Amino acid sequence: MEIGKVVGNVWATRKDEKLCGQKFLVVKLLKTKDTYKEGFLVAADNAGAGSGDLVFITKGSSARVSLDKENVPIDATIVGIVDTLEFFD
Amino acid sequence: MEIGKVVGNVWATRKDEKLCGQKFLVVKLLKTKDTYKEGFLVAADNAGAGSGDLVFITKGSSARVSLDKENVPIDATIVGIVDTLEFFD
Amino acid sequence: MEIGKVVGNVWATRKDEKLCGQKFLVVKLLKTKDTYKEGFLVAADNAGAGSGDLVFITKGSSARVSLDKENVPIDATIVGIVDTLEFFD
Amino acid sequence: MEIGKVVGNVWATRKDEKLCGQKFLVVKLLKTKDTYKEGFLVAADNAGAGSGDLVFITKGSSARVSLDKENVPIDATIVGIVDTLEFFD
Amino acid sequence: MEIGKVVGNVWATRKDEKLCGQKFLVVKLLKTKDTYKEGFLVAADNAGAGSGDLVFITKGSSARVSLDKENVPIDATIVGIVDTLEFFD
Repeated sequence: MEIGKVVGNVWATRKDEKLCGQKFLVVKLLKTKDTYKEGFLVAADNAGAGSGDLVFITKGSSARVSLDKENVPIDATIVGIVDTLEFFD
Repeated sequence: MEIGKVVGNVWATRKDEKLCGQKFLVVKLLKTKDTYKEGFLVAADNAGAGSGDLVFITKGSSARVSLDKENVPIDATIVGIVDTLEFFD
Repeated sequence: MEIGKVVGNVWATRKDEKLCGQKFLVVKLLKTKDTYKEGFLVAADNAGAGSGDLVFITKGSSARVSLDKENVPIDATIVGIVDTLEFFD
Repeated sequence: MEIGKVVGNVWATRKDEKLCGQKFLVVKLLKTKDTYKEGFLVAADNAGAGSGDLVFITKGSSARVSLDKENVPIDATIVGIVDTLEFFD
Repeated sequence: MEIGKVVGNVWATRKDEKLCGQKFLVVKLLKTKDTYKEGFLVAADNAGAGSGDLVFITKGSSARVSLDKENVPIDATIVGIVDTLEFFD
């Protein structure tokens, strides 16, 4: 899994109907505790995340496992809100 | 998922017959709201996308889940047309 | 999917017997219409490709879906020969 | 698989309930025997790893295979503690 | 698939018991016929490979397909020993 920060929203009216009712958020992934990787991804939200939250991202086929239905064509899901991220000294 | 822009077409007459009837589009993925990643990919279109559209791309095994048939050998699918992509300030 | 050019062959006598009878080709992936990405990959050929052909590559679990048997341990397959690759102006 | 070093912890109270009871560790992946790749990942621990351990990481759908339950939405798992990593001369 | 060279060994005593009895080798992947990519990976050996061998690597869920048991948490497998790797002129 990776840790990211919620930085935006995305809306799509015309889409595969299996995506309907699913909220999507724009996420930047952490490179270190204080810096970000280049680029961004869009993740389905399964943890009630909001703007600025540090979140837990699962990618690939495991992203589908988080939802109740296996037939949703997503490849990244927010599966938790991070309380504490600690790097040992 | 990732967001990309439709920038081209690709045709293949000799191909795995399980791909027949499927439209494919050339897509450049966004790095930021205004810039693109290097390279391009080819995605099956399951959202009626056209030239210049900003689209929602699902990759990996989830790309197959979008189609009605699970036996189509594709690894990237356009699953929606983006209306609005908003980055929080 | 990605587009690549067939640039070589590879032979392996000692191998997982589930690979027997399968032809493999060396492919360089396109970065733009005229340039290549660094590196190369080896793909199972399911489209009758030959030296110099521009081909359509599917990766991951979808590579297995192209073959008739699901138990072949491959992660990249040539699923078509490209006739035309067109980038819009 | 990849080899990494356990460098931190992460906690999430609000999360997909299928993740409950699972310990997660922050891991930096090795680039060479003595250096690390940029960035970090979070892995489910299925080997009793602790701070500073050199660990064996499996990613993708195979990460789920390590756990007893297939419906846990994870994409990286610590599947062993490395005793010796030897590069031939 | 990718081609790599066997450059080392790795041992782990404490591990997921589903990995027991499986040999693992350290592999560097080829970037060109004569140069290597940065980094290394660890692959399950299903072809009887040894030090210095040029090998055929399958990654992802297809790595599990090579073994007789589908529940082994691995994401890279050596599926063959390369006899000849030929790049066309």
